[in-house]
Amino acid sequence: MPGRAYGGQHCSVAGALEVVGERWTFLIVRDALLGKARFDSFLSGLAIARNVLTDRLNTLVQNGIFERVPYQDRPVRHEYRLTAKGRELIPIIVSLMEWGDRYCADENGPQRVALHADCGGQVRSYLVCASCARPLPPDEVVTVSR
Amino acid sequence: MPGRAYGGQHCSVAGALEVVGERWTFLIVRDALLGKARFDSFLSGLAIARNVLTDRLNTLVQNGIFERVPYQDRPVRHEYRLTAKGRELIPIIVSLMEWGDRYCADENGPQRVALHADCGGQVRSYLVCASCARPLPPDEVVTVSR
Repeated sequence: MPGRAYGGQHCSVAGALEVVGERWTFLIVRDALLGKARFDSFLSGLAIARNVLTDRLNTLVQNGIFERVPYQDRPVRHEYRLTAKGRELIPIIVSLMEWGDRYCADENGPQRVALHADCGGQVRSYLVCASCARPLPPDEVVTVSR
Repeated sequence: MPGRAYGGQHCSVAGALEVVGERWTFLIVRDALLGKARFDSFLSGLAIARNVLTDRLNTLVQNGIFERVPYQDRPVRHEYRLTAKGRELIPIIVSLMEWGDRYCADENGPQRVALHADCGGQVRSYLVCASCARPLPPDEVVTVSR
C-alpha cells in the first residue's frame, strides 16, 4: 500500500483509494448496504458487465471488504456479505450521498437515504473537532502533512 | 447526471461519483487542501502524466470543483482554487483518511492530518442521527431506497 498507480504516495487517502477508489466499488458497496448479496442481484442493478463485476467482487473479497458465504450446496453458490471493514465504508458513502444530494440530485430528490436503524431518524455526517468538540464547516478545516 | 457509465442509476452516490469518482480527483483535491494551486505543483507531487493532469483539472473546472484564477500577466498563467463546492468534498476526504488510517496505514502512521483551523484540534468525522442526536457506529445505519 499504496500500489503502482500512486508510487511514492504514502498517504491514507491514496491507500484507501487503492482499495476502494474504483467507481464501481462504491456502487457495489452501496447496493450491499441496500440488502443485495448475490451476484445476479448486483448484476441486475448495476448495468455492469458480468466479467467486470466478477473481477470487482473478487478484488473486494481479496481486500477484506466482502466475505463469500455459501448459501446453497448443490451446486455450491455463494453470496457476498460486507465485513466489518466493509461496513466501515458507510461514513464515506454517507458523505458521498450528502454531497451528491446537494450538487447532483435530480428533480425527484434523493432516491436513497441513510437512516438510524433504532429510531428511523435520518443520518447526517459531521466533522467535529476532537479538542474543542465543535461541529465544523469545511472552511474551518485544514489538512497538513506531518 | 449520472452519465453514461451508470445508465439508469438515479442516485446521489452515482451522481457524486460521476463528478469525483475518478481516483486522481481525490488526490488532486487532497493536494489542493494542502495548499497546492499551480499545475506544476500538482504535477510534481502526484506522479501523474502531464496530459492526464491537464484533462482532470479541466474536468474539475467544468464541474465547478476548481476555478482558474490568473496569477501572472505575461504570459498569462493560472492557478486552480477550490470553489465552495470543491471544499465541501472535505467530509468525504476526511472519511477516506480515517478509513485509510485504520486499514491502509504504513508503519510510520498517518502522513497527513485534518485539523481545526481555529484551535488546532484533530478533526473527526461522525455519523449522527438527526432525530435522536446520537453519534452512530456503522452497524446502526441502514440505507433504504425511497
